[in-house]
Amino acid sequence: MQEIIKSLVQKNEKKIVLLVMDGVGGLPREKGGKTELETARTPNLDSLAAESECGLHLPIDFGVTPGSAPGHLALFGYRPTDYNIGRGVVAAMGIGFPMRAGDVAARVNFATQDDQGNVTDRRAGRIPTERCAELCERLSSIRVPGVEIFLKPVMDYRAVVVFRGEGLSDHVTDTDPQAVGVQAHTPKPTSEEGRKTAEIAAAFIQQALALLKDQHPANCLLTRGFAELPHIPDMRELYGLHPLALAVYPDYKGVGRMVGMDVIEGLKNLDHQRQALKDNWDDYDYFFMHHKYTDSRGEDGNFDAKVAEIEKVDGFLPHIIAQKPDVLIVTGDHSTPAVMKSHSHHPIPFLINAADSRPDGVREFGERACAAGLWGIIPGPMLMRLALAYAGKLVKYGA
Amino acid sequence: MQEIIKSLVQKNEKKIVLLVMDGVGGLPREKGGKTELETARTPNLDSLAAESECGLHLPIDFGVTPGSAPGHLALFGYRPTDYNIGRGVVAAMGIGFPMRAGDVAARVNFATQDDQGNVTDRRAGRIPTERCAELCERLSSIRVPGVEIFLKPVMDYRAVVVFRGEGLSDHVTDTDPQAVGVQAHTPKPTSEEGRKTAEIAAAFIQQALALLKDQHPANCLLTRGFAELPHIPDMRELYGLHPLALAVYPDYKGVGRMVGMDVIEGLKNLDHQRQALKDNWDDYDYFFMHHKYTDSRGEDGNFDAKVAEIEKVDGFLPHIIAQKPDVLIVTGDHSTPAVMKSHSHHPIPFLINAADSRPDGVREFGERACAAGLWGIIPGPMLMRLALAYAGKLVKYGA
Repeated sequence: MQEIIKSLVQKNEKKIVLLVMDGVGGLPREKGGKTELETARTPNLDSLAAESECGLHLPIDFGVTPGSAPGHLALFGYRPTDYNIGRGVVAAMGIGFPMRAGDVAARVNFATQDDQGNVTDRRAGRIPTERCAELCERLSSIRVPGVEIFLKPVMDYRAVVVFRGEGLSDHVTDTDPQAVGVQAHTPKPTSEEGRKTAEIAAAFIQQALALLKDQHPANCLLTRGFAELPHIPDMRELYGLHPLALAVYPDYKGVGRMVGMDVIEGLKNLDHQRQALKDNWDDYDYFFMHHKYTDSRGEDGNFDAKVAEIEKVDGFLPHIIAQKPDVLIVTGDHSTPAVMKSHSHHPIPFLINAADSRPDGVREFGERACAAGLWGIIPGPMLMRLALAYAGKLVKYGA
Repeated sequence: MQEIIKSLVQKNEKKIVLLVMDGVGGLPREKGGKTELETARTPNLDSLAAESECGLHLPIDFGVTPGSAPGHLALFGYRPTDYNIGRGVVAAMGIGFPMRAGDVAARVNFATQDDQGNVTDRRAGRIPTERCAELCERLSSIRVPGVEIFLKPVMDYRAVVVFRGEGLSDHVTDTDPQAVGVQAHTPKPTSEEGRKTAEIAAAFIQQALALLKDQHPANCLLTRGFAELPHIPDMRELYGLHPLALAVYPDYKGVGRMVGMDVIEGLKNLDHQRQALKDNWDDYDYFFMHHKYTDSRGEDGNFDAKVAEIEKVDGFLPHIIAQKPDVLIVTGDHSTPAVMKSHSHHPIPFLINAADSRPDGVREFGERACAAGLWGIIPGPMLMRLALAYAGKLVKYGA
């Protein structure tokens, strides 16, 4: 079907905006209550919903909890299970690191461990990016025979490591235990192919621990998401679009770059994103606008703070509408209910606003309200298809 | 799945009627308004909907605008993307022309051009069918070495040309520019295979232009939809049905023939169709009843006239119900919103009425009302599946 869609594409001047509230889907705090999105005061989203078609989408499939990269791939129209993108690749792409075929990347958290070697803080007290950069510099002296190693700061306590050499593989397990009070894992191969890389990663970590010994709170590091570079067809070729990513967080710039988007660097907040949208409006026809903190506050388990982030985006929405996009889609890449403190499999509300949409009586942008919308529950990659259709960018199929 | 369904088929006496209002789906004329179908006074459709299961269907896929032939294939239970049916084949089948494997057919419009060779009317002032037949006769003297050429009138200004010979292909572009004020295109091959056919078509057109010079307003012709005959499994074998097409327009008889339907010739209007339904009721168990003019008025951009056509079909509905079909499906093959003057990708409302359906509270046959129906949005080819199931024509799968 991807090939058929490609053959139907026609270019025109119409502009599409995809506004992603990361992890926006949620759950009620208590039985019978409202979700974060249902709780938030969102007059702008609600009145937009009333003029839109609504529904819920499943980025991957029923019951599957999406990671950030697959969640976004779905929103960009790709079937996520066709492309295995590890977290490491996303992180490397996010900071613009020029990965090569055969490289293996992994995400790194600087973290805190106690004298028994148990992890006490998976984020090293959220050290600032500058400190992260110093630590990466400190670890640049690490040498492991047979590979080149690049360790680069990403943001706050997060970094990325790239291994370059012959015979590497991403068949290696995470060392991040995803919990405190326990020791970090040792990297293990998940197949014979992964053995060499697991050994190299273990050697790297061993040397790093020695160099971080006195750097409390960043006295250890955790790795996860070992990944090789996948080949993903370029959005520009698939859809004839000229796409731009307006994201603050590096990972989301990375996912955008991976599908062929241009990326504006240096955006720190919604105000910067708004200005960048305006400044670049004439030069692009697809805008991916990403807000991270709805997800972050969900991960923190902070229901009220997630509500506040949603309200912040609601206040930002008029700036997007002021640009008069031909098609505006508002949604999330997955659910991150504060009560779960993690991503979840729950379907995610969306709205599609366009001149020739059929408003469906949904008057509130929320999970349950959108479930009663025109589209019901659809696969996430269909949203890009619909965006193209509503923008008049797909010609008729057949006579 | 097609094979599994085939293996489950059991014959019985139950009768299925599929009533197609071509292009019935629409859009509001102004923001916040009603669609054509929602605007129409349809007491019979509404009370039938109240006793039926409702939903919306997508003939091809999300965001894809169906052509007429793929739209109907979907309604007959075939996945349209499995069978590439060009407009030329549909037209030839529609007039009962006995196409052979290897033949290439194309649709012909008689048209008007000015002294500069720019097309001024793509339909030659909608000349009547008799005039079209005279012109085809006039052009029967055309000879191009290496092929036999058949030029046959279809309806009004429309004809069909069939080329028969060795080494022909449908890899040839349209000459219809789909616009006025510009010249007709020259037929071009889209691959090496199409070179010979493109040359033959060009020679045919050149001779035709000489013979049409003084035949204003039909002083030129436009070709489109070069197509070879695809192989489509026969409905009689797939579903064990004995199907009959009751259509006025040739193209829809053509699509019916292509899947193995018998066709009643000479039907000019709904009254004829009603009588033919009655006369043939005992001899068939599947009736495809087609009304074209909902689509035509949508294509014209005439909202009110499309509403009137829908109301006409509503008045006709009791004649179908009087036959007491065991399963009655009412729907369209695609949307043709008058505000767009063209086919569109929007999902199409349907209702399924049968003894063992579960009425779902939908009390109005309209786009938004049906969106709240039991079935939500389903793929178009599932409607035939459901028709067979509700007619008791599919046995249990597995023990």
